Amino acid sequence: MTYIINTDKIKRAAIPWEERPQNSDSPIWRYSKNPVIPRNLLPDSNSIFNSAVAYHQDGFAGVFRCDDTRRYMRIHSGRSEDGINWKINPEPIRFIPSQSSINDLKFDFAYDPRVCWIEDRYYVTWCNGYANHPTIGVAYTNDFEKFYQMENAFLPHNRNGVLFPRKINGLYMMLSRPSDNGHTPFGDIYLSQSPDLTFWGKHRFVMGACGPGWQSTKIGAGPVPIETNEGWLLFYHGVLTSCNGFVYSMGAALLDLEKPWQVIARTEPYIMSPQTLYECVGDVPNVVFPCGALTDPETGQIAIYYGAADTVSGLAFTKVDLIVDFVKRNSSI
Amino acid sequence: MTYIINTDKIKRAAIPWEERPQNSDSPIWRYSKNPVIPRNLLPDSNSIFNSAVAYHQDGFAGVFRCDDTRRYMRIHSGRSEDGINWKINPEPIRFIPSQSSINDLKFDFAYDPRVCWIEDRYYVTWCNGYANHPTIGVAYTNDFEKFYQMENAFLPHNRNGVLFPRKINGLYMMLSRPSDNGHTPFGDIYLSQSPDLTFWGKHRFVMGACGPGWQSTKIGAGPVPIETNEGWLLFYHGVLTSCNGFVYSMGAALLDLEKPWQVIARTEPYIMSPQTLYECVGDVPNVVFPCGALTDPETGQIAIYYGAADTVSGLAFTKVDLIVDFVKRNSSI
Amino acid sequence: MTYIINTDKIKRAAIPWEERPQNSDSPIWRYSKNPVIPRNLLPDSNSIFNSAVAYHQDGFAGVFRCDDTRRYMRIHSGRSEDGINWKINPEPIRFIPSQSSINDLKFDFAYDPRVCWIEDRYYVTWCNGYANHPTIGVAYTNDFEKFYQMENAFLPHNRNGVLFPRKINGLYMMLSRPSDNGHTPFGDIYLSQSPDLTFWGKHRFVMGACGPGWQSTKIGAGPVPIETNEGWLLFYHGVLTSCNGFVYSMGAALLDLEKPWQVIARTEPYIMSPQTLYECVGDVPNVVFPCGALTDPETGQIAIYYGAADTVSGLAFTKVDLIVDFVKRNSSI
Amino acid sequence: MTYIINTDKIKRAAIPWEERPQNSDSPIWRYSKNPVIPRNLLPDSNSIFNSAVAYHQDGFAGVFRCDDTRRYMRIHSGRSEDGINWKINPEPIRFIPSQSSINDLKFDFAYDPRVCWIEDRYYVTWCNGYANHPTIGVAYTNDFEKFYQMENAFLPHNRNGVLFPRKINGLYMMLSRPSDNGHTPFGDIYLSQSPDLTFWGKHRFVMGACGPGWQSTKIGAGPVPIETNEGWLLFYHGVLTSCNGFVYSMGAALLDLEKPWQVIARTEPYIMSPQTLYECVGDVPNVVFPCGALTDPETGQIAIYYGAADTVSGLAFTKVDLIVDFVKRNSSI
Amino acid sequence: MTYIINTDKIKRAAIPWEERPQNSDSPIWRYSKNPVIPRNLLPDSNSIFNSAVAYHQDGFAGVFRCDDTRRYMRIHSGRSEDGINWKINPEPIRFIPSQSSINDLKFDFAYDPRVCWIEDRYYVTWCNGYANHPTIGVAYTNDFEKFYQMENAFLPHNRNGVLFPRKINGLYMMLSRPSDNGHTPFGDIYLSQSPDLTFWGKHRFVMGACGPGWQSTKIGAGPVPIETNEGWLLFYHGVLTSCNGFVYSMGAALLDLEKPWQVIARTEPYIMSPQTLYECVGDVPNVVFPCGALTDPETGQIAIYYGAADTVSGLAFTKVDLIVDFVKRNSSI
Amino acid sequence: MTYIINTDKIKRAAIPWEERPQNSDSPIWRYSKNPVIPRNLLPDSNSIFNSAVAYHQDGFAGVFRCDDTRRYMRIHSGRSEDGINWKINPEPIRFIPSQSSINDLKFDFAYDPRVCWIEDRYYVTWCNGYANHPTIGVAYTNDFEKFYQMENAFLPHNRNGVLFPRKINGLYMMLSRPSDNGHTPFGDIYLSQSPDLTFWGKHRFVMGACGPGWQSTKIGAGPVPIETNEGWLLFYHGVLTSCNGFVYSMGAALLDLEKPWQVIARTEPYIMSPQTLYECVGDVPNVVFPCGALTDPETGQIAIYYGAADTVSGLAFTKVDLIVDFVKRNSSI
Repeated sequence: MTYIINTDKIKRAAIPWEERPQNSDSPIWRYSKNPVIPRNLLPDSNSIFNSAVAYHQDGFAGVFRCDDTRRYMRIHSGRSEDGINWKINPEPIRFIPSQSSINDLKFDFAYDPRVCWIEDRYYVTWCNGYANHPTIGVAYTNDFEKFYQMENAFLPHNRNGVLFPRKINGLYMMLSRPSDNGHTPFGDIYLSQSPDLTFWGKHRFVMGACGPGWQSTKIGAGPVPIETNEGWLLFYHGVLTSCNGFVYSMGAALLDLEKPWQVIARTEPYIMSPQTLYECVGDVPNVVFPCGALTDPETGQIAIYYGAADTVSGLAFTKVDLIVDFVKRNSSI
Repeated sequence: MTYIINTDKIKRAAIPWEERPQNSDSPIWRYSKNPVIPRNLLPDSNSIFNSAVAYHQDGFAGVFRCDDTRRYMRIHSGRSEDGINWKINPEPIRFIPSQSSINDLKFDFAYDPRVCWIEDRYYVTWCNGYANHPTIGVAYTNDFEKFYQMENAFLPHNRNGVLFPRKINGLYMMLSRPSDNGHTPFGDIYLSQSPDLTFWGKHRFVMGACGPGWQSTKIGAGPVPIETNEGWLLFYHGVLTSCNGFVYSMGAALLDLEKPWQVIARTEPYIMSPQTLYECVGDVPNVVFPCGALTDPETGQIAIYYGAADTVSGLAFTKVDLIVDFVKRNSSI
Repeated sequence: MTYIINTDKIKRAAIPWEERPQNSDSPIWRYSKNPVIPRNLLPDSNSIFNSAVAYHQDGFAGVFRCDDTRRYMRIHSGRSEDGINWKINPEPIRFIPSQSSINDLKFDFAYDPRVCWIEDRYYVTWCNGYANHPTIGVAYTNDFEKFYQMENAFLPHNRNGVLFPRKINGLYMMLSRPSDNGHTPFGDIYLSQSPDLTFWGKHRFVMGACGPGWQSTKIGAGPVPIETNEGWLLFYHGVLTSCNGFVYSMGAALLDLEKPWQVIARTEPYIMSPQTLYECVGDVPNVVFPCGALTDPETGQIAIYYGAADTVSGLAFTKVDLIVDFVKRNSSI
Repeated sequence: MTYIINTDKIKRAAIPWEERPQNSDSPIWRYSKNPVIPRNLLPDSNSIFNSAVAYHQDGFAGVFRCDDTRRYMRIHSGRSEDGINWKINPEPIRFIPSQSSINDLKFDFAYDPRVCWIEDRYYVTWCNGYANHPTIGVAYTNDFEKFYQMENAFLPHNRNGVLFPRKINGLYMMLSRPSDNGHTPFGDIYLSQSPDLTFWGKHRFVMGACGPGWQSTKIGAGPVPIETNEGWLLFYHGVLTSCNGFVYSMGAALLDLEKPWQVIARTEPYIMSPQTLYECVGDVPNVVFPCGALTDPETGQIAIYYGAADTVSGLAFTKVDLIVDFVKRNSSI
Repeated sequence: MTYIINTDKIKRAAIPWEERPQNSDSPIWRYSKNPVIPRNLLPDSNSIFNSAVAYHQDGFAGVFRCDDTRRYMRIHSGRSEDGINWKINPEPIRFIPSQSSINDLKFDFAYDPRVCWIEDRYYVTWCNGYANHPTIGVAYTNDFEKFYQMENAFLPHNRNGVLFPRKINGLYMMLSRPSDNGHTPFGDIYLSQSPDLTFWGKHRFVMGACGPGWQSTKIGAGPVPIETNEGWLLFYHGVLTSCNGFVYSMGAALLDLEKPWQVIARTEPYIMSPQTLYECVGDVPNVVFPCGALTDPETGQIAIYYGAADTVSGLAFTKVDLIVDFVKRNSSI
Repeated sequence: MTYIINTDKIKRAAIPWEERPQNSDSPIWRYSKNPVIPRNLLPDSNSIFNSAVAYHQDGFAGVFRCDDTRRYMRIHSGRSEDGINWKINPEPIRFIPSQSSINDLKFDFAYDPRVCWIEDRYYVTWCNGYANHPTIGVAYTNDFEKFYQMENAFLPHNRNGVLFPRKINGLYMMLSRPSDNGHTPFGDIYLSQSPDLTFWGKHRFVMGACGPGWQSTKIGAGPVPIETNEGWLLFYHGVLTSCNGFVYSMGAALLDLEKPWQVIARTEPYIMSPQTLYECVGDVPNVVFPCGALTDPETGQIAIYYGAADTVSGLAFTKVDLIVDFVKRNSSI
């Protein structure tokens, strides 16, 4: 039996949930009222997508990518009692330097955040524009009001930096996807290690784009990996290049609990691809991009938040035993 | 108070109009029955979009981009009593040379027309294929039946040539967007001046693509500038390049009345982006492209005609005080 | 009067059919219940499109492109009593070598099949991955259960190989579209000849991409040519490159009965372009791609199966006299 | 007999000259001491090439493209008694606005000058960076010390603007090559007309890149056209794109004396291609690029100055009867 | 001991030869008086390279790629008594149709010939422009005066078609390199088979571009394979893409005598790369491209003719035992 | 007066030296017997360039980029008594893992080494192929015989990693140039900091490609920075993109001694560009690429080793006061 290992001890509300539809045997299914967050929830938002959520206090909090009507990329904090109805701060996050040297860091843009509770606080990682190039920004917060910016983890160009929710072998661990400075046509997932979240090293290749199919152009980690007795459960996105552009789909993998750069299993098929109108039509057609997940260790329920068409946010559900079983049965490793 | 300066004296019908929807505080709003012109209004039209209109006689007349089912680009004249229901001539415009030397000009294609009344006649400018390269064609008409072709204004490659509705400092003025011979990935707005509409010079840079947002790839003038006491009101399009192609949105700017190459204000956010199904789905997904406008100096009402998804024509409304106020409050200049 | 020449003698069922809608004078019209085959007809199919059908026994059989949820390209056999409701084998076709040397042929992928009855058996041609490059695979079957693979017809890189349903001047004839190894931005139709379906030669240029319109980037043969008293009726696809990618439309041509590399007529306009939601939205937006057709020589009815948006299968109808008349009247040759 | 028409009356020195080598029947031959101007003639010059010369006072003067060791593109004036030994001003030309509005023109870079005497002064045209885009700058001088800048002739993007040495039909005439903003992969020669050198119009296509050979990618006018009784003699460059980049060669054409947009003859072969070490090796390998010429109407001698490998200046000789005869015999028009 | 198998019986002259220089242990060495054929051997030749030679009568004959000063690609016949001093016909080869249907074949360009004696005549294969696309032309001659054109072997796009000098298993064999229609950035060697030199099939992948080194972009067969007791000895070119373009080097392989699509050995290092001035400087810098070879079965001497910098022809020498030994010792297969 | 600060204490031999040529006032001058290392110094070397040297024992030692005749990129150690005549080990360096986890690191290729003495040993940094992507490898040696590989410093994609010769503020410092996975068309210099040479962070932008000139495409650090009383003296390369590819030149900068990410001065002109035949002709034309330097603190002499045309190694000389003075006088900062 597969179960979620509960590594943090913060209080939990009931996560959003719908049972799998009758007649479906899919390992994952969409929320019936998608999109869960519309593009115009804020007065001047062009789109709200690729966002991350976490348990917080009696409910939930999150960090949201809200592109404004300038189409500038910004991240905002938000709160929700039920994980469905969100109040997002109309002002972008203004980071407070965690130490004086951080003032040196120019801030150009911010997008695609992840939120990860480790030990005593929430860490936010995001694609941070430094010297106008994308790299991985890191900050922490306790209350989703004040966010303290730390050193960028890596040199440019990098995207999709995702922390593990606990130290492993005494080191913090972060997945990321080195890239170039444009609409990168390649991309593999690597893991980096740190004693202090400031200096990073011991970089390891984890897994790459592969095959002729849905994940042949590039891949990138999605929500914070979920610890299970079968390994770290990682949802990730993969990209196929059609004659009319990129198609982003979702897959899942299991990583070794102690050597998380070793892949135990990985879905050869996607688990979700853009098929609904809100995933296929929008500012970037044909995008399903998971960034956040809420898990309930008691029931094994998982609620995945994903960006749809780079325009709105969708919600999808699975259960840990279903998805882990699917990953293992559909792996080519 | 902002008001429209009425520079021509031709008779005016009531322009199309709908009040701003309840609960909206947007500076611009769509016609509730969009698309106002369907793709197949003509028997063999593939699409009708990026078109220009003007007061004419008791109603309105216009020049329409009608791509036929060969996907050849042609412009047609049309008429309407109410600006909503249009009768478009199924035959493309056949230009009559305004002087014998014009016969030398080969005619390859015609698209994206604008119509501008100056002094005693209507001038049509459009993207004209000369030697198979795009440049700005110029013609005049009095009746939307006979169109007299004049010399092309510029050397290739150029698009989005837009006249001002009166001479300034004794010179005709035209905005345009120099480009290359393909799907140009760059483009700024320039102004050129002419004593006679034949010879052009004193070219001035007006404003360029800018920022990381909706107008970062290229920009181009839309309808004929509208004279207001605050400056020339220019609606224009801006393009962002996503990983899946171009996205065309609409913005607005104010230009100095006497030195119209000087920008007074310019919207940092877009005022309208492709968000409806008819703007996001079609021959070119994600396009909002304004080409024509009708204004009522008495009420300050403005009706903007725009191409949607390079397939159909949409209609949007604003009021001069609303939009000028928005431009000034949202300008980064 | 134009009529279909019935070259095979196999028993025929009633082909799918709907009369032309009232008020339409189009030479071709869509099935009112399109898409006729949904993307998820198979448990693990991502999409079912670009497929070919034929009379078989009391009904119909076909070979279908079914991309699975890995987005791997595979071809499957299927059967139907009415041409509307299809049962597709969930297992891809496993080819049996027709001779021992065929074992040398590596099999990487298979897509866009055509099915052609010649003399005593059905031949399947498809885009076959050999050494990871696309070329034209050839196989035969009698029962749509056992498929015997023959030698690839050509060297890479080739796509859209389409056989003629009888020998001409003692030689088998195949149309194809030489290409490159990617999303080829060029492509003309050639004809090749063979005494034995193994060795091919006497290659002839048939017709090329042309004009500034819908068929300006590349073209490729669609269903098996239909023999009529006016010439071989060929449905084909043409591609236009917009700033946001390829748009695939359908045209038709007439080829000389005895020298089929000579084009008698060819539609300057398309006969069908992507205009419905299922053609404009999907894994590849804006695709109409004909691959199969059923004809009834007695009534002149033709039912065309075409891929829509590289996602689902559509069905369209025409009559031989209507379409041949349209081709002749709208040809620029 | 072909002869040069002497349109200006300024005093003439003896132009540089060498007789055609024995055994050669080439229509053009290189100066035996090439390169005539080395790359480092100035203390901080990286390269001196693509330059223009004219009779001046008792000898010659010119405007020279001197890229400095920043690799910034600048133009300098220079003088010579014999056309061989040049003294170039180490300071770039600082243009004096010919009227106050010219101060608006930002100056970003200057390269590839031409010098043309018309009526009473020397006009300089060059590729002028305006708003960081290339267009045609125009200035005049009487003494090669003070240069008065006039309005740019055209909108960007343009290069290789070349004036005719007299008005034709009462209008100034300029050849140019519209381009894009990079290493333009296309380019044809157009002619524009002006009553006053400020406003330009009546643009005419003259001739385009053609064939599969040396002039298949783009072409551009070289020195000021030379008036002969057989037509305007135009030396021009043509570009072929090999798998390792552009190759620039030289050709010649004859244009109608009164309608100079009409081509009388044009060399199908090049007349000179990069074959010496100083033409094949340098900052841009494989470039022969003519920009200036000195003619002696009495002898028919022509000395052509051309850039070699974008690094140094070469000199080549021909005679008007030889070259005109060659153009006419080797024309495909 | 390795020796050459003498398959033809035509009379042989002494092939060009120089012994390996002292101190060299290279498997191949250049002719001390290279380039053996200068670029301007013909009055209007721009370059002479990538050419093929054969024993003929008392000496040698060949087919030469001579690009003229239009830079049009043409092939010419030539003769030599000693293989060093060549007389090339200044007129390109005018092919005589070998049968009436060949008249249908448009002739656009011809380059990179090979010459192969089989049984009773010389066959010429070359890159033939058909419908403006490259494919493999085939012709035969007995006297290098009259050349009879046969059907093109393949559909476009193809280059480097090279026949084997005898039938194998009753079939003619040809190597070729399928390509695209430009400066193809990929390319592998395939083998095709034919009963009659008109119809071709049984295509087999032979070997591909590989590794990160000199043959990583594409490869193509060079001279006609030389039969040895160790297998068919094939000289071929390989291409590396540097940041400044393609670099063409030469390698060698051994193919199975009866199944020549099976590679016995293949040089991991190149055997010759562009290192001399005439190979590094010219119309295309950095090209060594072998097309022809003369062999002496008695001595094992081999003289290889290769194009240098796409400008001139070089000559290099090896001995069959040296080179076969080198291939076997330096193979990674 | 500018002087070199002698941070290491190892014994010094006399570095290679030639005085500045008469009549020259250049801040840098070439060795009169360049290339100092020919391409074929090793039996199977294709090229030897982009290499680093250091004082060692009684003379000098170095690490050399030796591409073999497979064109595989490898680094070799070498020794010299005089810095002119080098003995390079024909076997590439085989790294010994410095700790067991290093065994995980796949080794694909190695190029462009630098050598830096810090405290008690030599550190080698190079472009290391990990998972087939370039990143910065790190190793140490004491004897140039045994090299111990440490963790890669960064995630891919990175090149030109250059250590500072001492800790600053208690941290090791490394310059590098983040890139993409091909012939990167962009590139700035960043600085990263580390307490232990394993974990890196506190990344700072140092300086970027700039201007329209020689350093407009990308830049990268060259030899180990030289400590002077005026700041760290950094030689670096800059790249300009011509229509025929990249041109690599050399510049110099001064960085703040304690905050070395702050640029004090930087040459607007290059100090050396490819102008000799061995710099302009070779495997990559037009490359001057400095990687190593020897300095004599007593005399202020500096000998710079640089790769020429990616083929051979050149040597150039300067004096610290000359070059620092030049940098300060020619800086635009």
